[in-house]
Amino acid sequence: MSKEFDVVVIGAGPGGYVAAIRAAQLGLSAACIEYNSYADPKGEVRLGGTCLNVGCIPSKALLQSSELFEQANHSFVMHGISVESPKMDVGVMMKRKDNIVGQLTTGIRGLFKKNNVTLLSGLGSFAGREDEKWKIAVTRNGATEHVLAKHVIVATGSRARHLPGIEVDNKVICDNEGALAFDGAPKKLGVIGAGVIGLELGSVWKRLGAEVTILEAAPEFLSAADPAITKEAWKTFVAKQKLGIKLGAKIGKVERTDAGVRVEYEHKDEQHVLECDRLIVSVGRIPNTDGLNGESVGLKISERGFIEVDAQGRTNLANVWAVGDVVPGPMLAHKGMEEGVMVAECIAGQNGHVNHDTVPWVIYTHPEIAWVGKTETQLKAEGIEYKAGQIPFAANGRALGQGDTTGFVRMYACAKTDRILGVHVIGNNASELIAEAVVAMEFDACSEDIARICHAHPTLSEVMHEAALACDKRPLHF
Amino acid sequence: MSKEFDVVVIGAGPGGYVAAIRAAQLGLSAACIEYNSYADPKGEVRLGGTCLNVGCIPSKALLQSSELFEQANHSFVMHGISVESPKMDVGVMMKRKDNIVGQLTTGIRGLFKKNNVTLLSGLGSFAGREDEKWKIAVTRNGATEHVLAKHVIVATGSRARHLPGIEVDNKVICDNEGALAFDGAPKKLGVIGAGVIGLELGSVWKRLGAEVTILEAAPEFLSAADPAITKEAWKTFVAKQKLGIKLGAKIGKVERTDAGVRVEYEHKDEQHVLECDRLIVSVGRIPNTDGLNGESVGLKISERGFIEVDAQGRTNLANVWAVGDVVPGPMLAHKGMEEGVMVAECIAGQNGHVNHDTVPWVIYTHPEIAWVGKTETQLKAEGIEYKAGQIPFAANGRALGQGDTTGFVRMYACAKTDRILGVHVIGNNASELIAEAVVAMEFDACSEDIARICHAHPTLSEVMHEAALACDKRPLHF
Repeated sequence: MSKEFDVVVIGAGPGGYVAAIRAAQLGLSAACIEYNSYADPKGEVRLGGTCLNVGCIPSKALLQSSELFEQANHSFVMHGISVESPKMDVGVMMKRKDNIVGQLTTGIRGLFKKNNVTLLSGLGSFAGREDEKWKIAVTRNGATEHVLAKHVIVATGSRARHLPGIEVDNKVICDNEGALAFDGAPKKLGVIGAGVIGLELGSVWKRLGAEVTILEAAPEFLSAADPAITKEAWKTFVAKQKLGIKLGAKIGKVERTDAGVRVEYEHKDEQHVLECDRLIVSVGRIPNTDGLNGESVGLKISERGFIEVDAQGRTNLANVWAVGDVVPGPMLAHKGMEEGVMVAECIAGQNGHVNHDTVPWVIYTHPEIAWVGKTETQLKAEGIEYKAGQIPFAANGRALGQGDTTGFVRMYACAKTDRILGVHVIGNNASELIAEAVVAMEFDACSEDIARICHAHPTLSEVMHEAALACDKRPLHF
Repeated sequence: MSKEFDVVVIGAGPGGYVAAIRAAQLGLSAACIEYNSYADPKGEVRLGGTCLNVGCIPSKALLQSSELFEQANHSFVMHGISVESPKMDVGVMMKRKDNIVGQLTTGIRGLFKKNNVTLLSGLGSFAGREDEKWKIAVTRNGATEHVLAKHVIVATGSRARHLPGIEVDNKVICDNEGALAFDGAPKKLGVIGAGVIGLELGSVWKRLGAEVTILEAAPEFLSAADPAITKEAWKTFVAKQKLGIKLGAKIGKVERTDAGVRVEYEHKDEQHVLECDRLIVSVGRIPNTDGLNGESVGLKISERGFIEVDAQGRTNLANVWAVGDVVPGPMLAHKGMEEGVMVAECIAGQNGHVNHDTVPWVIYTHPEIAWVGKTETQLKAEGIEYKAGQIPFAANGRALGQGDTTGFVRMYACAKTDRILGVHVIGNNASELIAEAVVAMEFDACSEDIARICHAHPTLSEVMHEAALACDKRPLHF
């Protein structure tokens, strides 16, 4: 007889493993299926999905190492610190990253054990119904085992989109996986796509000495971000940091050469050729529904490849749920995790909920970019009357002390009610500063609330405080 | 005829200058009196008080520079970065600090101008009543001018407490002023007092090579902090960082020697001698009421030297208010600023208010320490039933990526209502992470609120999220 579970989660990325743990915490028997071994030295299945193995976590490790190297080269002098010819051993940097990833992915195995979640190694797919339960196939090395599930949560995530005619070998032409595992800094690095991944990885290798050219098809830079942020980011990345970003670039023929890659592209009506030794293709991600055999059970998938769900993660099939990158919405690990909790709670009979309006966005460049709520573009498009408060970090004692004064906090509040509508940060530590704004927005705070709340001095969070005061045109320190 | 103002503020530290600016913003004519030039090269009066000139701001500048030096010496290797023999030029480090202080103190002059606050240079003191207004003397270089004020705000701050028999020359035996201006790292540094200032400045000079011994009279370490935090701090500072802290040390004879200072002290019933080339005396601060001539008008001052005020900053005299270090409560710049705003608003007929229960505390050691609300000691003493959630940074991907996993977040919530009662952080970036907790507590948030709010991944703020989940014994990542 097949093993049975109350909940079977397909995919052990952030959405999936969190859903399985939460389901188990709520007293449900839970299993989580994963097949991907990534670069595991023993070939064992690795938990944590893209985020942990080839996404957020390894990129942040490399960003930290390369940022320290950048500081040694450029910032130390103002502090009075002299170091002779800093050198980066990329092998050691990569090994540290691998250790962090290894530690965390092993950690999730520990969490599964602690919370009594069963790990099923293999590729999960729908195999029909049996005894009013879903029958799920778990296939590994050609062998298939079946399990039964009252509820199925699809959390299969996403993968890098590739471009036709550009074969990704993850050695010379790479997506996120290969770009996180270079054995040395390229001399000339090409990047197709100036989104989050292109900017983060472009920054890593730029700091380590690569000449970086980023080709972006869209005519606008970071179009999802607030226009004031975009402008500052452009000024910082392109004018100051010399990241070579070309907007409206139309990629032509891409071919491997002895030296690396040759990319033909059109920019401002002229033909150009970019010769580089490595090329990163980061042009978005597509949801993983191949191999799921969803069509055999009638799982509804949109034209763009996403599983269609209601606000609580229900698909068109009874007791089949989906969370994370495989459903519509921003492809952010924390959004997937919150959805995982929501669905597990709904299955357990609670009323799970995710407020997608207060999911923060972060880009881990330096300066970092983070925001929550609406951009000015959205406010205008929706005809909402708003007031804005913007304060630069240059007016902040902590930022001066840290020697890092780029950027600002920009807050929007409703012109009528003063309710905070959006908060946008570009600057050092933006990723952490945004947490305050998220909590404030979850409590429907007004800008005056933040203005009246004590902020520790001297901290960068005082810039948030001042931005709130500035919504009422009464900043104290600007 | 004397100049007249609606509001005259005595003292241009954080409490004072903010009070003056806020009063002016509310349409009141406002003046601010300051006499201290600190180390201004032109001998001009310097705005910003202790905090900006010889406190928070310069110490944070030195902490940043010395922390980078520490990283170069000890942390770089794990990232694969090699630097040969890092050297610190203390002169450059000090110059950078001086520039930051200069920039900010000049900035406050700009803010006064922008907000139409009149700066009166000189020592402010009470000179009686005239035409139903307060007459205030402003004395500089022996000359006295008088101004009339409908309202007076005393914001004279505090100064370092010195010890009898230990003459502070601010060259060899220093309080905070001298300790922020050493011309080089001492070989052996003695510190009397293991409070915030002793720990911060001890850390700076330790990182730059000094052998540091801190003598603390109290038998307990950081007794104001949460006991769990204190324990972790002790482990980190003493066992790992080798700050030599001796608790329960009784200071005996202190004398200057050719080599520096000789300190006799008793520790664990034994007599010891500490020979050091510099000594920092950081045994607390006392309110500045000398020179104010408060007794001539009957201003009520407590036995401990603080001006007595009601919850809105009113003294016993009509239309005389006081804020900041000169009134009871923690001597924190941001507490003074909030009181400055409160009093200005009360004078303008509004109902100003400071919630002293949500004023955050920060210690800028590495790791940083920050908290808001009640400690476990307080909860027990008050007989409040509580639950606790504690999560280490070692379980957090961002902390691992940053290579800095010391410490934890510890949250207390009411056992009956789940309302958050206190949040305690020891770890990298604690000073910024606490902002979220302050906002949450101002909104009377429950631990479940934080548990249900989306936190960006990967960020250190996720540890706050998990600590909230842990209050309900259901952390997802621990």
